Amino acid sequence: MSAAPTPQIDGPRLLASLQALGQIGALPGGGVNRLALSDADGLGRDWMVARMRALGLRVEIDAIGNVFGHLAGVEDGPPVMMGSHIDTVRTGGLYDGNYGVLAALEVLATLLKAGLRTRRPLALAVFTNEEGARFQPDMMGSLVYVGGLPLQEALATRDADGLTVLAELQRIGYQGPQPVGMPVADSYVELHIEQGPVLEREGVQIGVVEGVQGISWTEFTLQGQSNHAGTTPMALRHDAALVAGQVAVHARELARSMGGRQLATVGALQLSPNLVNVIAQKAVFTVDLRNTDSAALAKAEAELHAFAGRAAQAEGVRLSARALARFEPVDFDAQLVELVAQQAQALGCSHMRMPSGAGHDAQMLARVCPSAMIFVPSVGGLSHNVREHTEPEDLLRGAQLLLQVALARANRSS
Amino acid sequence: MSAAPTPQIDGPRLLASLQALGQIGALPGGGVNRLALSDADGLGRDWMVARMRALGLRVEIDAIGNVFGHLAGVEDGPPVMMGSHIDTVRTGGLYDGNYGVLAALEVLATLLKAGLRTRRPLALAVFTNEEGARFQPDMMGSLVYVGGLPLQEALATRDADGLTVLAELQRIGYQGPQPVGMPVADSYVELHIEQGPVLEREGVQIGVVEGVQGISWTEFTLQGQSNHAGTTPMALRHDAALVAGQVAVHARELARSMGGRQLATVGALQLSPNLVNVIAQKAVFTVDLRNTDSAALAKAEAELHAFAGRAAQAEGVRLSARALARFEPVDFDAQLVELVAQQAQALGCSHMRMPSGAGHDAQMLARVCPSAMIFVPSVGGLSHNVREHTEPEDLLRGAQLLLQVALARANRSS
Repeated sequence: MSAAPTPQIDGPRLLASLQALGQIGALPGGGVNRLALSDADGLGRDWMVARMRALGLRVEIDAIGNVFGHLAGVEDGPPVMMGSHIDTVRTGGLYDGNYGVLAALEVLATLLKAGLRTRRPLALAVFTNEEGARFQPDMMGSLVYVGGLPLQEALATRDADGLTVLAELQRIGYQGPQPVGMPVADSYVELHIEQGPVLEREGVQIGVVEGVQGISWTEFTLQGQSNHAGTTPMALRHDAALVAGQVAVHARELARSMGGRQLATVGALQLSPNLVNVIAQKAVFTVDLRNTDSAALAKAEAELHAFAGRAAQAEGVRLSARALARFEPVDFDAQLVELVAQQAQALGCSHMRMPSGAGHDAQMLARVCPSAMIFVPSVGGLSHNVREHTEPEDLLRGAQLLLQVALARANRSS
Repeated sequence: MSAAPTPQIDGPRLLASLQALGQIGALPGGGVNRLALSDADGLGRDWMVARMRALGLRVEIDAIGNVFGHLAGVEDGPPVMMGSHIDTVRTGGLYDGNYGVLAALEVLATLLKAGLRTRRPLALAVFTNEEGARFQPDMMGSLVYVGGLPLQEALATRDADGLTVLAELQRIGYQGPQPVGMPVADSYVELHIEQGPVLEREGVQIGVVEGVQGISWTEFTLQGQSNHAGTTPMALRHDAALVAGQVAVHARELARSMGGRQLATVGALQLSPNLVNVIAQKAVFTVDLRNTDSAALAKAEAELHAFAGRAAQAEGVRLSARALARFEPVDFDAQLVELVAQQAQALGCSHMRMPSGAGHDAQMLARVCPSAMIFVPSVGGLSHNVREHTEPEDLLRGAQLLLQVALARANRSS
């Protein structure tokens, strides 16, 4: 088998697949809105299942709506799994998640067309609600799959309109009969756009992803006192907006002073009553902290909380905080990461080892099987943005690398 | 006439009036929502007009909906006018505006019951849309009355639902036939709750208001770049939220460093997309600057704009600004202010001279006739708040002082 030439993916077919799926939930000015379990997500899933069935894959759907397409190997056993997700944020692009799914589909189509059968089975996974834009937490489908979140709890999750995951899964026809946690995988490889500017800035074609940085999301609530902006002396104020601003400025300073891979973002903030001439009674805002180093992340959290506490006290504002999400940094499987690097080398691609800044289904899969990721460059580092873009040659290079990694893994001797 | 004892206002009747008007637009948990030209405002006006007519006042309504109640004097001529407004913010209290109107009504009722006739006529004015909570600008009725805003422009103003002032005035039946600017007033005295903590803190019963501080409202818009919070290195960010936070923190520092009567408030702020894991592409926020000194206010504006420009440039974010409101500080009529102080003294009240922190109809009237204001303490300095409160004895003391100032002014020899 090693003597046979490595089959080449069909570039135009992959690009056409990306455009076709991108039509489902397309936004008028470009980009896609395919929120998890929306009508558009249902149509996207229908399209995926139809494509999988057209290739002759055996399709299975589990109780949280994860979709699996199976291609038998020469031997039985746990499949080498590839995959990602097809849900998007409200103003998403064509590539986040979709690329990994469609490249995996293209890998299977290529192998089938070439008449190649791997030693171990292959599988394609489409995980439910990776984005978390409608139902929290994000990475829900893969988290349930690995046993990190009880199925019933996930199904009971409600969106802002009070609709449950269960009701929406049933409405779009994607609550399947397969128990969650099935199929058991030999390993998992996820191809993804970088969603950041590093590969482009470094002029490197492939990111060999060694792990995912840890994530800490905290929602802070500040309770001050609303009062007239024109009659309340500065020294007598209890201004929730001021403290929120101080924490936002401090978060940036903290990331700067810690350096390394520490990131800090205040992305959401709501004031009330939110009027020009009324001192804010309440501010609710989020802080997103990330670091590849577990101890450093914990230190950043502690320092931020301490600062927020001091600032709130100085202004006479009541502070409370709740964790919205907390993931420790994840290290991918060293052997599988090495295989990605070797195959990138064999393909003649420039490549670099790097962490993933974003969360991905692969970090969940890493709990139950050897997992790794492949990154391709994002133009301008843009993602979660309708202008998200990756150059076609980069898309094809990544898909070819995925094929070669999957082949090597599935055909390994032991 | 000077030999006659000064009539005393009927305290229980004034307090009952405040409670009765406070029922119209009452909020379930306390407080009032009587937005300008709403159904509740219409009912409140009906109630006021009925009370005025029951006293035998001649009622006139002008083309912007200002309501005037006239009590003839011994001589003809421009009336000594008292008044304020009865519209409220969405979650307002019982006293802001309403107190000045109902105390003036009580003054007229007291004089009528005592059979006292002043030399010059007296009038009670209820100005349209002082709050500006629904239609901007605020102080609209008095601004149109003094010729500061063309009638047609005011009538064409739309609320957030697209309804015009004209349509809403007509709907509630308060576009009157009287030309704006009529009646010409001899002078104007407005009694108002302080809406700030100074009198309470100083333990002083009456504020002799010397003028109104200048107001500068600016809306800043920052255009950054939305990007993934987990993949975008700190140094490559264009974070609109960060710059908004920096400006909010700077505004406080500016007020602190300038000292004196400089106030600075960031009360409203909107981020977009406003998501925990997306760097803010856009921040729109307001800065409210106030000072009794014109040059200092201009300096604060200039420094704030300069800082915002530098902060935006440092972050690579585009800054734009638009003025939402700009009023120069207003000095009230020295003679009328002195009369208020004298009468407070005569009444045996502790009193202090002070500026008004908030905008009031009196600052508009000051453009066309000698004007002044009387403040009574606000408990906790709270206003624009359903818990707005002034102690009954303070309410009665202020009303009695208003009566004595109006009597003295209307009966003066020349």
